[in-house]
Amino acid sequence: MAGDLILLAAVSLLSAFQQCHFAWLVGKSRMKHKVMPPAVTGAPEFDRTFRAQQNCVEFYPVFLTVLWTAGWFCNQELASFLGLLYVFARYKYFHGYIRTVKGRLTGFYLNLIILFCLVTLGAAGIVNSFLDEYLDFSITKKLRKLL
Amino acid sequence: MAGDLILLAAVSLLSAFQQCHFAWLVGKSRMKHKVMPPAVTGAPEFDRTFRAQQNCVEFYPVFLTVLWTAGWFCNQELASFLGLLYVFARYKYFHGYIRTVKGRLTGFYLNLIILFCLVTLGAAGIVNSFLDEYLDFSITKKLRKLL
Amino acid sequence: MAGDLILLAAVSLLSAFQQCHFAWLVGKSRMKHKVMPPAVTGAPEFDRTFRAQQNCVEFYPVFLTVLWTAGWFCNQELASFLGLLYVFARYKYFHGYIRTVKGRLTGFYLNLIILFCLVTLGAAGIVNSFLDEYLDFSITKKLRKLL
Repeated sequence: MAGDLILLAAVSLLSAFQQCHFAWLVGKSRMKHKVMPPAVTGAPEFDRTFRAQQNCVEFYPVFLTVLWTAGWFCNQELASFLGLLYVFARYKYFHGYIRTVKGRLTGFYLNLIILFCLVTLGAAGIVNSFLDEYLDFSITKKLRKLL
Repeated sequence: MAGDLILLAAVSLLSAFQQCHFAWLVGKSRMKHKVMPPAVTGAPEFDRTFRAQQNCVEFYPVFLTVLWTAGWFCNQELASFLGLLYVFARYKYFHGYIRTVKGRLTGFYLNLIILFCLVTLGAAGIVNSFLDEYLDFSITKKLRKLL
Repeated sequence: MAGDLILLAAVSLLSAFQQCHFAWLVGKSRMKHKVMPPAVTGAPEFDRTFRAQQNCVEFYPVFLTVLWTAGWFCNQELASFLGLLYVFARYKYFHGYIRTVKGRLTGFYLNLIILFCLVTLGAAGIVNSFLDEYLDFSITKKLRKLL
């Protein structure tokens, strides 16, 4: 069991670490621009850093859900690879956003594409499992027989 | 294994998709009211849209946790049905909030009731599993014997 | 299967309940200081309450990820105990923050230490599982043989 999910767990742990790192960078930006909690606005650079982190926070549970659904019901290796790409795209997004508002766009669009792929994989895996479970019809088994 | 959780995974994927949809609607509202990032305040309608999405984001990991606990330890079908209702209630909440501040209340109270049901189911399932695991006493087995 | 994860599920459900409780306290603070939605700033006490809850929200999926990784791949009992401590530290953080900005620090540092321990446990468990799965080399089995 644990073996089937180890890559997903490794990617999840890495992404959790990245979230902590982003929160820490917001803290550092607070010090630099003297924005004391509970304030969340101040210098424009701080505002961008904070918004970048908030956007990462908003999408984090969504990312985890689609990563695990795609990995569990479709293909662990492919989902984990896409998960790694997502972590990289979040890095691009975050550091691009700190520099300029437009700088976030490359990472942002990359993130969207990866989420779309993971949702598609997850949906395909779930539909296949449904057919297999409730109608005893498995597309993957049919494909394997054909090849 | 995967078959026991397929309905939960399907509802989770649907809710993840809904979260993305809400984020996209906030983006659209940004364009309409010309609120450029990293700003998060502007026209009253944008403020309501943004707050609605933020509230959905806040409760999303809580929802996933109670959905899976209830489905895993108590009853998958019932938990998934409540999960579907939750997605519908979030839809009501979000679109009600965009119209007026009071418009959010129907969806909001419906969400609370569903979360309460899921927490109760999850807690009941966990207590039952505890008794079964550590005291070798299973309420569900006793009930099955009686009926 | 369910038995191996019951403590993790119990801690997760407790923490989900705590998140709901925090959201409810923010609602109460809204009433007390007459900060009507969608506004999120007002009296300093409300601002601190809101920021405290937002910080808990930001870290909640990260906490769940490292809790489950540590519990699944390393040791369920230890991870669940650290999870309980985390819930307690969040309680200290939240109520400390409501009183004064500095009051949050004890809970905050305790939270960081616990997250660090959980990440370390999770990473150790994953590395060990990797070695076992792909190189057929298990540190835990070696240790058990030695002792």
